[in-house]
Amino acid sequence: MFKRNHHLIFSNLFLLLLICTSISIIAFADEGMWTFDNPPTEQLKEYGFTPTQEWLDQVRLASVRFMDGGSGSFVSPNGLVMTNHHVAVGQLQKISTEEKNYVNTGFFTSKMADEHKCPDLEVNVLISMDDVTQRVRSAMQEDMDEVEALKARKAEIAKIEKESLDETGLRSNVISLYHGGEYWLYRYKKYTDVRLVFAPERQAAYYGGDFDNFTYPRYDLDVAFFRVYENDKPVESKNYFKWNSKGAAEDELVFVPGNPGSTDRLYTYSRLEFQRDFNYPLILKYIDRRLQILHKYMKKGPEQERRALVQIFGLENGKKALTGELSGLLDENLMAKRKTDEENFRKLIAENPEWEKEYGDAWDTIDKTIEKNVTIAKERFYRRIFGSKMAGFAQIIVRYVTEVPKPDAERLDGYHDSELPQLKFRLFSPAPIYRDLEEALLAGALQMSLDELTPDDEFIKIVLGNRTPEEIARALINGTQLDDVDLRKKLIEGGEDAVNASSDPLIVLARNLDPMMRASEKWYRENIESVLTPASEKIAKARFAVYGKDMYPDATFTLRLAYGTVKGYPMNGTKAPYKTTLYGLFDRSLSFDQKDDYSLPQRFWDRQKKLDLSTPVNFVSTCDIIGGNSGSPVINKKAEIVGLIFDGNIESLPGRFVYDEIKNRAVAVHSAYITEALHNLYKCKNLAKEIEGK
Amino acid sequence: MFKRNHHLIFSNLFLLLLICTSISIIAFADEGMWTFDNPPTEQLKEYGFTPTQEWLDQVRLASVRFMDGGSGSFVSPNGLVMTNHHVAVGQLQKISTEEKNYVNTGFFTSKMADEHKCPDLEVNVLISMDDVTQRVRSAMQEDMDEVEALKARKAEIAKIEKESLDETGLRSNVISLYHGGEYWLYRYKKYTDVRLVFAPERQAAYYGGDFDNFTYPRYDLDVAFFRVYENDKPVESKNYFKWNSKGAAEDELVFVPGNPGSTDRLYTYSRLEFQRDFNYPLILKYIDRRLQILHKYMKKGPEQERRALVQIFGLENGKKALTGELSGLLDENLMAKRKTDEENFRKLIAENPEWEKEYGDAWDTIDKTIEKNVTIAKERFYRRIFGSKMAGFAQIIVRYVTEVPKPDAERLDGYHDSELPQLKFRLFSPAPIYRDLEEALLAGALQMSLDELTPDDEFIKIVLGNRTPEEIARALINGTQLDDVDLRKKLIEGGEDAVNASSDPLIVLARNLDPMMRASEKWYRENIESVLTPASEKIAKARFAVYGKDMYPDATFTLRLAYGTVKGYPMNGTKAPYKTTLYGLFDRSLSFDQKDDYSLPQRFWDRQKKLDLSTPVNFVSTCDIIGGNSGSPVINKKAEIVGLIFDGNIESLPGRFVYDEIKNRAVAVHSAYITEALHNLYKCKNLAKEIEGK
Repeated sequence: MFKRNHHLIFSNLFLLLLICTSISIIAFADEGMWTFDNPPTEQLKEYGFTPTQEWLDQVRLASVRFMDGGSGSFVSPNGLVMTNHHVAVGQLQKISTEEKNYVNTGFFTSKMADEHKCPDLEVNVLISMDDVTQRVRSAMQEDMDEVEALKARKAEIAKIEKESLDETGLRSNVISLYHGGEYWLYRYKKYTDVRLVFAPERQAAYYGGDFDNFTYPRYDLDVAFFRVYENDKPVESKNYFKWNSKGAAEDELVFVPGNPGSTDRLYTYSRLEFQRDFNYPLILKYIDRRLQILHKYMKKGPEQERRALVQIFGLENGKKALTGELSGLLDENLMAKRKTDEENFRKLIAENPEWEKEYGDAWDTIDKTIEKNVTIAKERFYRRIFGSKMAGFAQIIVRYVTEVPKPDAERLDGYHDSELPQLKFRLFSPAPIYRDLEEALLAGALQMSLDELTPDDEFIKIVLGNRTPEEIARALINGTQLDDVDLRKKLIEGGEDAVNASSDPLIVLARNLDPMMRASEKWYRENIESVLTPASEKIAKARFAVYGKDMYPDATFTLRLAYGTVKGYPMNGTKAPYKTTLYGLFDRSLSFDQKDDYSLPQRFWDRQKKLDLSTPVNFVSTCDIIGGNSGSPVINKKAEIVGLIFDGNIESLPGRFVYDEIKNRAVAVHSAYITEALHNLYKCKNLAKEIEGK
Repeated sequence: MFKRNHHLIFSNLFLLLLICTSISIIAFADEGMWTFDNPPTEQLKEYGFTPTQEWLDQVRLASVRFMDGGSGSFVSPNGLVMTNHHVAVGQLQKISTEEKNYVNTGFFTSKMADEHKCPDLEVNVLISMDDVTQRVRSAMQEDMDEVEALKARKAEIAKIEKESLDETGLRSNVISLYHGGEYWLYRYKKYTDVRLVFAPERQAAYYGGDFDNFTYPRYDLDVAFFRVYENDKPVESKNYFKWNSKGAAEDELVFVPGNPGSTDRLYTYSRLEFQRDFNYPLILKYIDRRLQILHKYMKKGPEQERRALVQIFGLENGKKALTGELSGLLDENLMAKRKTDEENFRKLIAENPEWEKEYGDAWDTIDKTIEKNVTIAKERFYRRIFGSKMAGFAQIIVRYVTEVPKPDAERLDGYHDSELPQLKFRLFSPAPIYRDLEEALLAGALQMSLDELTPDDEFIKIVLGNRTPEEIARALINGTQLDDVDLRKKLIEGGEDAVNASSDPLIVLARNLDPMMRASEKWYRENIESVLTPASEKIAKARFAVYGKDMYPDATFTLRLAYGTVKGYPMNGTKAPYKTTLYGLFDRSLSFDQKDDYSLPQRFWDRQKKLDLSTPVNFVSTCDIIGGNSGSPVINKKAEIVGLIFDGNIESLPGRFVYDEIKNRAVAVHSAYITEALHNLYKCKNLAKEIEGK
């Protein structure tokens, strides 16, 4: 299964270390996550196919982004959206109760009235894209120092976003492509009334569990359907993908529109070393400890298991993904290739005196900045309250009331006008909060910080004083009322006075920590970000100068188009086939004696005779994708749906750094399996007919 | 699929470089290919099982060895022997014609009278084992130099074998275990009237072809049945294995009696380096070129394809095996482990002055000898007539008439009295010889020698003179009559005079080459073998001194007992199941759209409805096996057949050097698949009943 966008799953965990640099790359056949303003037209000529602007527009407008991480697509004119079960599973958990566990049982309805509203799911459609590079750059004056320049740039971006929001009412984000090479204003139509229509049992969707996750051959029905509403009615989705149950033939050209989360293909070599030697080990250690806490917690009973399962799933997924990515960084051949590419690029720069003068010092600047960052990165990482949603709310509330009264341009990132709707959508989510889970996670996270920081660290002193992590966590979670949405609303509405007057222990703690956190963020902005941003931009400009624009930017969780062919690959001494079939699903189940992750919902056995066992289940293509692409449709030249991306194979994980056409494969649910399952396993005839257009 | 014994498949190709040394090893759980005089009783205590002497005797006497390479077992009281299709395939090809291609169609009969006699298949049963170490050693006197000692040792071995043959009429072989640590006289009952009873289509037996060869999960029906006759009647095989169609459960203890070909687990580190840097690259290059020749040849037509296929199969199998083994030698961790083991062993020796004096110099001696060998090994390898069976016959005939008149002890290896019956069985085989194939292979092989040796090399001068490899090969094969068995017999009977008088061009060439070949062999004996043999023996003695005899010797294509549990393993990011099912066979076929190596014989589709698709097909266990074990039965504690070894997984290939319990797996056909196939695919009810004992 494909990890979702790290950036989003681990929230600020990654933000901290995401610094942007670039090296030269040359795009190989089938490589690339292309922006819709710069599609791979040249590359597609080899396939004898030229996408028209109409084709591109239709594909873009039929594609959606899930703000929680993940992609999807409209598959009927009535707002029906298809994505992965694993993109939907967070919502499934939130609408489940001790009595009704939809994660286990699946969710099905034949009546529109029974479609289940999701507590906090936001879906976006990319309406327009405008190049604002010149405007962003012109905000910076020649006489500014680096810190002032960074501030000016951020202020200008906030201004563009606010203007656009005010003018259009659309979600408006300025995104940096090519690590500062270009800035674009992306406007999204956003939907927040999203209702669940169909989800199979997790056991069918996530068949093979953590073991089979990120692997192939696979047999997963990793699909869910939502319907997007506006004004309590299904939206009219004129732009949607038609269904093709036959699927794609071997070697057929296919496309994947979706929102890949992040890649590091343009990082400098020194950045990769930092990732390999510092960042990945740090995060993997953190994940392991958090998993220990959750496993201990879920032993308390079936309801605890239900509460913990989705988090465990996300962490296991992340761990397997990061381990696979790290294996790329530890691969001497891959690193040697990256080193050579960078050396060649720098040589070309050095040979041109003008370029050398303009861009030549960027790499050394980055190297020095990374060295500086290493000295403090671990401390910055562990000076942070992990694990408790309510503690996170408290921190946001404390900041909100201070930041929002300021002029937009002077606020901290995350608190600009254009960002507030989403912030509030999450902050005021009615999704349930489990106090025992919060306490267990918070205690565990504080223990980690205690273990990793010095005992006299300022953060430890403020949070723990002389008490133990368990004591503090119990006191904080017992004492807080922040699981009450109304209280959160009241504090936001009451502003700084209300927050200062609050004696809620999590609010008090957030207030006490805020000065230290601000100082730390300021240090990072002034010492790291303000240096890295212009240095990365230099390299981006150098790359354009040397290679032109026949390239794609690193992934940014914005809409991209990947292309490739349906094709198996060499695996473990033999060949992995381009597709699997239902025969294989039953084989895998019986080959493990139907145990544990390899058991199947009873309906599969009861209705086996009704199934055509030769139905394709999953298939692979060379399309270049990564986490965030989960739920992307796979479409053919006619823009018909032939599949549903849900994973990359394990060989694709080093694809974060280098794409390898030989073994890198995108794994998708075959369109035929989805309709076969709807008809003959789940008897959801109406839904099947709706997507089949019958 | 498991390679067969290299030693035998590549005949003298490997003999050349097989030098015997040893380092310390400690046997891990489930590791070991144990001799029947020293079974792993201690290790089996952990499983709560102690094999009785009766159990061991019965297992030994029900096990058979195929002299062509491979193992098998009696599975009925009427001489019925089970082995692999790939052990039988050479005979299948030999009894096939342009009209009847049993390799493709399979071979089935319900009447004993129709069982098809094989042209040159010899089957052995190990009747007794006697320790003759003292006798072999006492033949060497203190005042002998190394060359004399080697000669005396060989003479004594030949004498023991001849005495035994004369006394008992049994095939009698003195084998060196632990690289000279022990010498044993093994006596075999041998059978040469062996008739084919059943073989499925190659497409069912070798399902997945070269791609799936050596991999798992697998779906092969790699089985064949022979019946052993004496005096034109089936032998009474009192010792046979009973059938258990249920097979073994996951984690059940199982055993594999069989004849593993060769392992290098006791090699010194310097020997491994020699293999890695010299021997494997040399042989892989040779195989690649030979495959090129065969692929070119088989394009001439379907009959040429039929003629070449079994050789291609053997070479592809060997190539994949050697590549996998080489990957072990290139694995830094594995090599580091071997180095550490050797260092620890040598340290223990060094700490004991007596041991150090006795054994301490052996490693340096071996290192120096290997250095010497490297200087000439490539030349020795390519000064050799490859490719033509008839050229091989000519060389044997020329030597035979010179050697056999000598006293037994003075003859070259291969021409001792005890070896003559097998030599004649092969030399007088009525199996067909294809002149066009002989010519193509001979021309190709001579071209290789021309490319690899200097143009003024003595061998090149004698063989080619001023003519091209093609011209010489055409002249030799057109001119020879050695495909006539009677001529070969006449030359042997006519002795030196007849051979000297012969103007058959292959005999003439063999005569011209013989002095050079003898000189080369003499150099090797006197400079390499005579030094390595005592040095290896020293290390063997040192190992006994340090570690006692709780260890097993390297494989020697003699009967061994392996044990282990039925168990999956971690694979490619997930788990490989302990078994596969018929569902999976149909999945794999359809997942490749039934193309090429993944097509199935039509009967599988026609009779699919009659099959229980949940029938287990193949399964894996931790049993420690290697090439030569092909066709070994897998038995349970009751000595009932639960499966049939046919391969090792690709992760097991470095097992030639180190056994890895985590991933090393023996791959077997499940007993249930064999009976299900006999009943419902092939309708061989009588055969099924015979093995089921019904």
